[in-house]
Amino acid sequence: MTYCIAVTLNDGLVLTSDSRTNAGIDNVSTYGKMHTFSTSQKRKLVLLSAGNLATTQAVVEQLRRDIKDNGATNLNNVPYLSDAAEYLGQVSLEKQKKHTDTEEGQSGFTPTATFIIAGQISGEPPGAYLIYPEGNSITSSQQTPFLQIGESKYGKPVLDRFLQPDSSLEETARCCLISMDSTMRSNVSVGPPIDVLIYRKDSYSFEEHYRFEADDPYMLELKRSWDTKLKQAFSELPVLQKTSAKPLLSDL
Amino acid sequence: MTYCIAVTLNDGLVLTSDSRTNAGIDNVSTYGKMHTFSTSQKRKLVLLSAGNLATTQAVVEQLRRDIKDNGATNLNNVPYLSDAAEYLGQVSLEKQKKHTDTEEGQSGFTPTATFIIAGQISGEPPGAYLIYPEGNSITSSQQTPFLQIGESKYGKPVLDRFLQPDSSLEETARCCLISMDSTMRSNVSVGPPIDVLIYRKDSYSFEEHYRFEADDPYMLELKRSWDTKLKQAFSELPVLQKTSAKPLLSDL
Repeated sequence: MTYCIAVTLNDGLVLTSDSRTNAGIDNVSTYGKMHTFSTSQKRKLVLLSAGNLATTQAVVEQLRRDIKDNGATNLNNVPYLSDAAEYLGQVSLEKQKKHTDTEEGQSGFTPTATFIIAGQISGEPPGAYLIYPEGNSITSSQQTPFLQIGESKYGKPVLDRFLQPDSSLEETARCCLISMDSTMRSNVSVGPPIDVLIYRKDSYSFEEHYRFEADDPYMLELKRSWDTKLKQAFSELPVLQKTSAKPLLSDL
Repeated sequence: MTYCIAVTLNDGLVLTSDSRTNAGIDNVSTYGKMHTFSTSQKRKLVLLSAGNLATTQAVVEQLRRDIKDNGATNLNNVPYLSDAAEYLGQVSLEKQKKHTDTEEGQSGFTPTATFIIAGQISGEPPGAYLIYPEGNSITSSQQTPFLQIGESKYGKPVLDRFLQPDSSLEETARCCLISMDSTMRSNVSVGPPIDVLIYRKDSYSFEEHYRFEADDPYMLELKRSWDTKLKQAFSELPVLQKTSAKPLLSDL
């Protein structure tokens, strides 16, 4: 399983991903799910991937090749981020089809994958697109500044609660780490190291990239602090008021 | 959709359920999902239901009839809670089968339902069983004191974090209300009124049952208070430490 988040803010982007993959519970490996590309100076793009590892690797490989070979459409020449999403959708479909159509293929096997492409292309603000296995895509909005792929439910309430388009990049990174922590507690197939990439609008730089191992002192302190504060907050909640709700004595 | 929680504690049980059902987004209704039964003095049983409404209603109806007609097996004569779970699994399978096998039935239609049966039968401690659509069942444990059915993921992290077998009944009810609140924020198909039933061990009484409407003053205060405290807790977390993680400058 996988869990990746892309948040589009007024000040830039925050991308977060875990690194655990599994093919059955006895075949667990570590693979980063955040991929960057060598693009020209005035564009920076990053890819987050979830789903079948063979498909995601084939897609990443193809994107890199197309840049190197200067293909008709590649991440270095698409004029808009939405074109990058469209192109990525096509490559993804093609790679999935390759392994679904073969006669030797197992029936019922679907090597699907879901992607997020995020970044900035000169002339446009930073943005992010989520590409479904079917090749179509959606982007974030002012009301919903984040996109998630993979095991998204456990960590969604904390994002719903805290993230706004005007949140700071640093605050958002912290919020994503907490969302990741909640997810890792509830699903063992999501695991460290955690990659966090902070992209400042118009910087065209991916230098603020951090990898948090399981024993990273900041990550441990963040988890401990959040747990303590939550327990404190919980203990201070108003005690259940038996007078406020109507007790029902008959059959419900 | 539905969200129900059953927590088994040293002191008794806490059961929580929402009341929203939908058959498509334009057909939303309110139906309680917590059902009690007229059993003898030394046994108290409650049923929580999720899934196809026709199936759950047919199952509840059958359970009530079997008690009334004093059927060979009914909730009033099963010697153990695990037998109640077994019996419920059979009734559920039977009702599902009825609507899957008919020649007139739509192909691909599966009227599945999932249940939790909880309570106390004299001679045994209080307990809870989750009955899968296939008719088999699981119970809670000291390590995992809660069972969930329906839209369980959004609200699971808060239960994982706070619930212990020695938690108090009141504290647990509060925790379940928060878990319910997180779920309602993230999935509109889970909605009020919220039923909470507190069962004290060996009391053989279901009098502590509360129904919280959307505008219940305690529920509003709890939500407001939790939101404020979480935001406070979040703002006090240690600031992202750029020195603690290794920045990676090359391609990830």
